Amino acid sequence: MDRSDVREVLEDVAGGRMSVDDAIDRLKLIPFEDLGFAKVDHHRSIRQGVPEVVYGAGKTVEQIVAIAESMLNQGSGSVLVTRITEDVASEISRSLPIEYDSSSRIGVVGSIPGHEGVGKIVVVSAGTSDIPVAEEAAVTAEFLGSKVTRIYDAGVAGIHRLLAHSEDLLSARVVVAVAGMEGALPSVIGGLVECPVIAVPTSVGYGASFGGLSALLTMLNSCASGISVVNIDNGFGAGFLADRINRMESP
Amino acid sequence: MDRSDVREVLEDVAGGRMSVDDAIDRLKLIPFEDLGFAKVDHHRSIRQGVPEVVYGAGKTVEQIVAIAESMLNQGSGSVLVTRITEDVASEISRSLPIEYDSSSRIGVVGSIPGHEGVGKIVVVSAGTSDIPVAEEAAVTAEFLGSKVTRIYDAGVAGIHRLLAHSEDLLSARVVVAVAGMEGALPSVIGGLVECPVIAVPTSVGYGASFGGLSALLTMLNSCASGISVVNIDNGFGAGFLADRINRMESP
Amino acid sequence: MDRSDVREVLEDVAGGRMSVDDAIDRLKLIPFEDLGFAKVDHHRSIRQGVPEVVYGAGKTVEQIVAIAESMLNQGSGSVLVTRITEDVASEISRSLPIEYDSSSRIGVVGSIPGHEGVGKIVVVSAGTSDIPVAEEAAVTAEFLGSKVTRIYDAGVAGIHRLLAHSEDLLSARVVVAVAGMEGALPSVIGGLVECPVIAVPTSVGYGASFGGLSALLTMLNSCASGISVVNIDNGFGAGFLADRINRMESP
Amino acid sequence: MDRSDVREVLEDVAGGRMSVDDAIDRLKLIPFEDLGFAKVDHHRSIRQGVPEVVYGAGKTVEQIVAIAESMLNQGSGSVLVTRITEDVASEISRSLPIEYDSSSRIGVVGSIPGHEGVGKIVVVSAGTSDIPVAEEAAVTAEFLGSKVTRIYDAGVAGIHRLLAHSEDLLSARVVVAVAGMEGALPSVIGGLVECPVIAVPTSVGYGASFGGLSALLTMLNSCASGISVVNIDNGFGAGFLADRINRMESP
Amino acid sequence: MDRSDVREVLEDVAGGRMSVDDAIDRLKLIPFEDLGFAKVDHHRSIRQGVPEVVYGAGKTVEQIVAIAESMLNQGSGSVLVTRITEDVASEISRSLPIEYDSSSRIGVVGSIPGHEGVGKIVVVSAGTSDIPVAEEAAVTAEFLGSKVTRIYDAGVAGIHRLLAHSEDLLSARVVVAVAGMEGALPSVIGGLVECPVIAVPTSVGYGASFGGLSALLTMLNSCASGISVVNIDNGFGAGFLADRINRMESP
Amino acid sequence: MDRSDVREVLEDVAGGRMSVDDAIDRLKLIPFEDLGFAKVDHHRSIRQGVPEVVYGAGKTVEQIVAIAESMLNQGSGSVLVTRITEDVASEISRSLPIEYDSSSRIGVVGSIPGHEGVGKIVVVSAGTSDIPVAEEAAVTAEFLGSKVTRIYDAGVAGIHRLLAHSEDLLSARVVVAVAGMEGALPSVIGGLVECPVIAVPTSVGYGASFGGLSALLTMLNSCASGISVVNIDNGFGAGFLADRINRMESP
Amino acid sequence: MDRSDVREVLEDVAGGRMSVDDAIDRLKLIPFEDLGFAKVDHHRSIRQGVPEVVYGAGKTVEQIVAIAESMLNQGSGSVLVTRITEDVASEISRSLPIEYDSSSRIGVVGSIPGHEGVGKIVVVSAGTSDIPVAEEAAVTAEFLGSKVTRIYDAGVAGIHRLLAHSEDLLSARVVVAVAGMEGALPSVIGGLVECPVIAVPTSVGYGASFGGLSALLTMLNSCASGISVVNIDNGFGAGFLADRINRMESP
Amino acid sequence: MDRSDVREVLEDVAGGRMSVDDAIDRLKLIPFEDLGFAKVDHHRSIRQGVPEVVYGAGKTVEQIVAIAESMLNQGSGSVLVTRITEDVASEISRSLPIEYDSSSRIGVVGSIPGHEGVGKIVVVSAGTSDIPVAEEAAVTAEFLGSKVTRIYDAGVAGIHRLLAHSEDLLSARVVVAVAGMEGALPSVIGGLVECPVIAVPTSVGYGASFGGLSALLTMLNSCASGISVVNIDNGFGAGFLADRINRMESP
Repeated sequence: MDRSDVREVLEDVAGGRMSVDDAIDRLKLIPFEDLGFAKVDHHRSIRQGVPEVVYGAGKTVEQIVAIAESMLNQGSGSVLVTRITEDVASEISRSLPIEYDSSSRIGVVGSIPGHEGVGKIVVVSAGTSDIPVAEEAAVTAEFLGSKVTRIYDAGVAGIHRLLAHSEDLLSARVVVAVAGMEGALPSVIGGLVECPVIAVPTSVGYGASFGGLSALLTMLNSCASGISVVNIDNGFGAGFLADRINRMESP
Repeated sequence: MDRSDVREVLEDVAGGRMSVDDAIDRLKLIPFEDLGFAKVDHHRSIRQGVPEVVYGAGKTVEQIVAIAESMLNQGSGSVLVTRITEDVASEISRSLPIEYDSSSRIGVVGSIPGHEGVGKIVVVSAGTSDIPVAEEAAVTAEFLGSKVTRIYDAGVAGIHRLLAHSEDLLSARVVVAVAGMEGALPSVIGGLVECPVIAVPTSVGYGASFGGLSALLTMLNSCASGISVVNIDNGFGAGFLADRINRMESP
Repeated sequence: MDRSDVREVLEDVAGGRMSVDDAIDRLKLIPFEDLGFAKVDHHRSIRQGVPEVVYGAGKTVEQIVAIAESMLNQGSGSVLVTRITEDVASEISRSLPIEYDSSSRIGVVGSIPGHEGVGKIVVVSAGTSDIPVAEEAAVTAEFLGSKVTRIYDAGVAGIHRLLAHSEDLLSARVVVAVAGMEGALPSVIGGLVECPVIAVPTSVGYGASFGGLSALLTMLNSCASGISVVNIDNGFGAGFLADRINRMESP
Repeated sequence: MDRSDVREVLEDVAGGRMSVDDAIDRLKLIPFEDLGFAKVDHHRSIRQGVPEVVYGAGKTVEQIVAIAESMLNQGSGSVLVTRITEDVASEISRSLPIEYDSSSRIGVVGSIPGHEGVGKIVVVSAGTSDIPVAEEAAVTAEFLGSKVTRIYDAGVAGIHRLLAHSEDLLSARVVVAVAGMEGALPSVIGGLVECPVIAVPTSVGYGASFGGLSALLTMLNSCASGISVVNIDNGFGAGFLADRINRMESP
Repeated sequence: MDRSDVREVLEDVAGGRMSVDDAIDRLKLIPFEDLGFAKVDHHRSIRQGVPEVVYGAGKTVEQIVAIAESMLNQGSGSVLVTRITEDVASEISRSLPIEYDSSSRIGVVGSIPGHEGVGKIVVVSAGTSDIPVAEEAAVTAEFLGSKVTRIYDAGVAGIHRLLAHSEDLLSARVVVAVAGMEGALPSVIGGLVECPVIAVPTSVGYGASFGGLSALLTMLNSCASGISVVNIDNGFGAGFLADRINRMESP
Repeated sequence: MDRSDVREVLEDVAGGRMSVDDAIDRLKLIPFEDLGFAKVDHHRSIRQGVPEVVYGAGKTVEQIVAIAESMLNQGSGSVLVTRITEDVASEISRSLPIEYDSSSRIGVVGSIPGHEGVGKIVVVSAGTSDIPVAEEAAVTAEFLGSKVTRIYDAGVAGIHRLLAHSEDLLSARVVVAVAGMEGALPSVIGGLVECPVIAVPTSVGYGASFGGLSALLTMLNSCASGISVVNIDNGFGAGFLADRINRMESP
Repeated sequence: MDRSDVREVLEDVAGGRMSVDDAIDRLKLIPFEDLGFAKVDHHRSIRQGVPEVVYGAGKTVEQIVAIAESMLNQGSGSVLVTRITEDVASEISRSLPIEYDSSSRIGVVGSIPGHEGVGKIVVVSAGTSDIPVAEEAAVTAEFLGSKVTRIYDAGVAGIHRLLAHSEDLLSARVVVAVAGMEGALPSVIGGLVECPVIAVPTSVGYGASFGGLSALLTMLNSCASGISVVNIDNGFGAGFLADRINRMESP
Repeated sequence: MDRSDVREVLEDVAGGRMSVDDAIDRLKLIPFEDLGFAKVDHHRSIRQGVPEVVYGAGKTVEQIVAIAESMLNQGSGSVLVTRITEDVASEISRSLPIEYDSSSRIGVVGSIPGHEGVGKIVVVSAGTSDIPVAEEAAVTAEFLGSKVTRIYDAGVAGIHRLLAHSEDLLSARVVVAVAGMEGALPSVIGGLVECPVIAVPTSVGYGASFGGLSALLTMLNSCASGISVVNIDNGFGAGFLADRINRMESP
């Protein structure tokens, strides 16, 4: 039973071919989605032309191509494919036009949005090895329509390098702070800026970094206000959320 | 050496009593803060009249009173004291006027801001036992100037109770989702709304909830986009961040 | 808008006072629950007279009394209150008639179901200290309508004590196996019986039992088939699920 | 000493060639199994013709073939071999006829049971990557005689996709809910249905999913009643238990 | 059906009142234990007069008294009650004669075995706070019939204090090494002696000792051969096992 | 300064060429070992002809050969090399005669001790995958001089298979119980036998077995007396300790 | 056999009453310590008059008094008693003169060393609640002879407060950095100074601070060079080590 | 704005071209670093000719070469590259002269400092497999200017091998103690020496060593004073810190 069924029931009621009681019984069985409930359809109508995202890790090339094609068919202008290697991108390119960015491990299928970006997101990363995750956040946010400034290699063990960027930090609408190892970067930034800070722990490190657990705990325990945390290595999630916040309009 | 020292150095230079080279040497020694650097002073000048916050847990009544008095003396109109018991509030009341809210375990010292609140933050909690943390978030955000709608006792094991509030959720600018035990609430909400969702794990539970660890991990692993997480039981942090995001102006 | 609103909309359609298109728009806004959707109402109509359950731990006497009264008012014949002390039960008894069973830490408010119990659930526990959790499971299942046989103090370190009850085990429709410390009981039982086994780790133990974690892991790793696990100390959950399975009818 | 020894002892007693006291002494030494005790033999007599299962992971092709042949020789009509790759299945096929299903990673050796399946098990999975575990559960249950309905890609971050299948869920006798990452699916389903729910955490995820630990904890802490949990990735265990419960007869 | 039933069956066979086939059928139903199987009875016959042990922690005085009385009634000359406070011992003394040793937290009910002890167990402990666990091991082993030498306060941070006891260590038949904090004692001892070393981690420590986990891991990872480990704080288990090994006779 | 230096000092004292005070001063500087202290030399004198052991994992072929040659040169009749692959053994065979046993992953370099073995160690393992660890224990104990009986594939989920070996278990002087997954085997055996039981957790398993942690915790928490535990997969350690205990002589 | 025995042996050798070979045999048995070996005696002779330390936590007043008296009797001029409450200090004062410092929870028994302190240790702490641990470090170092400068309440979330003390930090010979919660302080300091930094995690925090584990991991993973870590809350250990390093003399 | 800007501002003030107030406003905007603040420049001026260090693991050959060249260009006489394989070193050698030491996995680019080394650092390691980490510490310290003595294969399970080196240990200014498995070495050394001990846990081990966690916890919990700990496998950090402490001059 889909939405046309709802119309049919109502038309039967309008036409006197179905009693109100029978209609109530019929409506109980209508699947949630088909009622055009809330988010779903509204969502779809808004989303025409808006880019979609596919998490590429752990998916075969066939699966990625199939999902991306389906999205494009449903009207998406472009599709962001995250966490893929250059090889995977190259294989995808046999079926679909894709532009691959090796620093963020992101491929863009279809026409790329040509916007200049609004607002200002600052993405800061602590070490060289944190850059792929930072780029995943930055490229995602740019793709979704935000303007992004990058400050890389600014860990807390060289605090002057971070402080040298005070002006950028203080003018940000949102900061994404990416760090592995001790993960202290978001705390220091949280003490400097007044805007929301999204902390991204990375799995960079060795020994007692336990695959990012150390950085994660540090960030969750931050004494600075205005900080929240996403999953280890989740650059996409941070970029997505940063874009959402950055593009908020006045209440 | 404080800011008047900087002026003094500059006046000596202006008056020809100090060479430029000597002035450079002197300036190198000036403490960071005294240069009126960035956030600090700017901060103070902006903050006149704005409420301050004291984390009350683990502080003695004497310490809380001393800190609050110092803040009021520096011009704060009111001070929010979090995580205090009714007894502590009552002891504080001997020294300072304080209004205590037992549901959020928050006391307000001094004149309370009379604003109506702007925007719309929705605070959702899963179980009855999560309410104190939810209230800490809600009262904090209200205190800082946001309008807050509460949806309590809406855990995912009774999904209809949550869905019954779709309208409130869909009209929120920020959602704070508070849950202990399995902590699945933010994921479900994150799939319903398009605004930022701040997830707060609570230490409510028993057995394998491990003091909130289970809920924390669930939230960090959420498949929904637009979710970030604060520390276990950190209602204040969530309310503070929600207020920041809620009151953002258009880019 | 509640269910009478749905009727109203439909009657307006039937009476020609509302177009089909307008009706579709109105129906989109109806809260999930009010459509009489699925479980909720069906649930209520079935549940008249059926006992309800309140998890008592961490609730005040006032809260328990209020919830129980509300349930009784909605037609429940009796209410099971779990995880309460004798003192709490005694305080509740000032407001509501309650029968308290100290071994299971369960109180029953209102008229107790007088059934004899159907089928056969066998509750086995390993040590004397596991009995409260075992009793929580047993009393819950009996309360919900199942017949329960208890085999206590039958840990795997004295396997003959367990084997002496082979006949009871082999004739069970469901077995609830409760154990702390090493938690090996469900594995051994799972190798003896062919019916479903619900394993309940308890927090009984010391040292490396880590509050039930050791028993929990043992049970999850069981090599025997037909075993599933509930949370540490969750006797109620095991008893509830055992009753559900026990009272299944032929497919 | 085997069962014929028991007969011999008894015949000696019957023939007066052995005293009762000596017989008691002899019987004490008889191995448990050889007495035809309880489950074992009874088991065997019942099991003739019933399929057996071999856990294939970590076994060599030689070991799998040997075990399967031995089972077939003892009268099993067919053998289910779980967790094998296509390569292993292909190597096995040199020695034994095997049908391999790549989605569930299961091979069936020997004649496949031709039943249509009884009752109704619903297997729900959250993400695409959870499908192999879900299929392991589904294929196992079908193999053992149950009818299975699959609902895939229905995670809680898109709750409408799950709710769209309310009818299937509400008519299930058992639900197997498979999820990695945040693992919230069983809680939501447990709040919708009244039948037993078997939760299967998967190792799908990254970062703080810790190889399935996050999903496991979520499921153990579920607030919904009627849920129990099996080991991470244990699709076979869930399918086996679901079949047991599904095929229960009225008490 | 108990052992007299077995005799009865056999006598019926002997008297020609029951066929051999019927007897076999009857015997299948006899509970394991009642066959006087293996360990159980043999055990009982040997155990007459031998002391029994009750783990006292988490048991009420009533429970301890009941269990001890039952043991004495079954012929035990004395009962060791471990992990009880002086208060509990004093309450027990109202019902049963008990001698309490506060250093080991052990009480002995009934007549104490008067033996001098055989062989030589050496109990070594690292710190003053480890002594209660060490005494639990020592008193247990003495009670069971072993001769025990104590070397206390001999942690590895003062290796000379341990080496000063080389003669005692080298003449031991078994060493029980008790340590909290870093738990390195058994490794050092294991490198000095050739006899079996039983390592007992204690929960003594703070910070990253995590309630004995640190000491436990150290002991499990010992590079020295001949070491095995019991649970955290399990002095009784170590003393019991040490006595078993100490009293072994030549092969 | 070595032992001949001690003699020299003493001869100087004897010959009046050095005062007693000077001799005391000289002796303070003598390295521990060179005094012929305790274990070391005594050890060596006893060990002539006795096999030595090299832990092969993580060592290069060159390192293994060098160590084994040095041991043989110092008088060892043979050297046990544990945890090596067939390839490593084959490379070693170019330099030294080695006999490799693939089931235990052990190679023996040099002349193998021809003894028949004394006493009786029983090695029990739960699953097929636990056999390499069990064999490491068995082969080690045999190599060191003990007689070993193997009972494999006797996990607790099929308790009758274990009980069928009661006679062997009851006649053992030491039992080595090897198990992965739930690790319950030692508890059940510990309840059946009166001799010492050495429990060996293995890393066999998946999901929540966490590389052997689950089995390790189960074994540490065993309710049965007389059990102690070695490191995960430490078959050598268990076999070594079992041999030590097995060959103890009467006190 | 003690040191006088060594003299005796040597005198017998000198007097011709004992052969050199017999003397060697005798010396083998001399306990390590009695040889006046290395550290022990040397230690004692140096230590006359130097303060000793007693870890007070978990010791009874009687034990503390006994240990302190024994130390004073052996010549210590004063004894530092750490981790004691005011009550314990007051009880000790009945037996021994003690001066108690409530901020560091340290008592000093006997005459206090009157030195001014050499070098410069800077103790920095992040939050108010970290002060007791910081004071334990500071008071310990002062007691042992170092000069200590305190910088409290200088967490990384307010980096300017820390930077305001650059001069003190840059002139330190050793820095002790004390922090709970996120524990990022030592990393920032390690990036500013060139001297050794001793990091002390504290158990201050809530939620995912896990009793200091979060701070501990952060510190171990620090990207800054020159940092090492002591146990959670181990202020004494840090102060002791800082004093050792501070008082090093030129190589 | 850089340092020349500061001069310009001051010259404008001196020349009367800028008011003091305007100058203060300008100075507020000057980036931290450009003021020649504190550590940074001071650092640089001192560091001319001093070797720099690059952490090589996880960096591409291109990245390492680029960083090293940049360092050499800025005046470093040589660059230490840690954690690289022989292959990486060989690839680097195509661009830059590099000397590779396979035991420490360290390469030195550029002219090697020809110093003899001052003071005395003793690096002790427990097992053969710990040597690479120990060598990383030793080579680092030597490179930075310290004299290093190595004591390898001196684990606590053969305490005499360690004690045989008492003289070296007692004459050390700093000891670096490297150990995996049980990690007890630093505790024993800490009890022997009076100088600072830097403990380095290694990831060497299996089973419950959990990648170095066991050794790490042991070292943090050491009862000996004067010990601090660096991250698992962090030989470089230990060598760097040891050099710093070793080269301290008298206060």
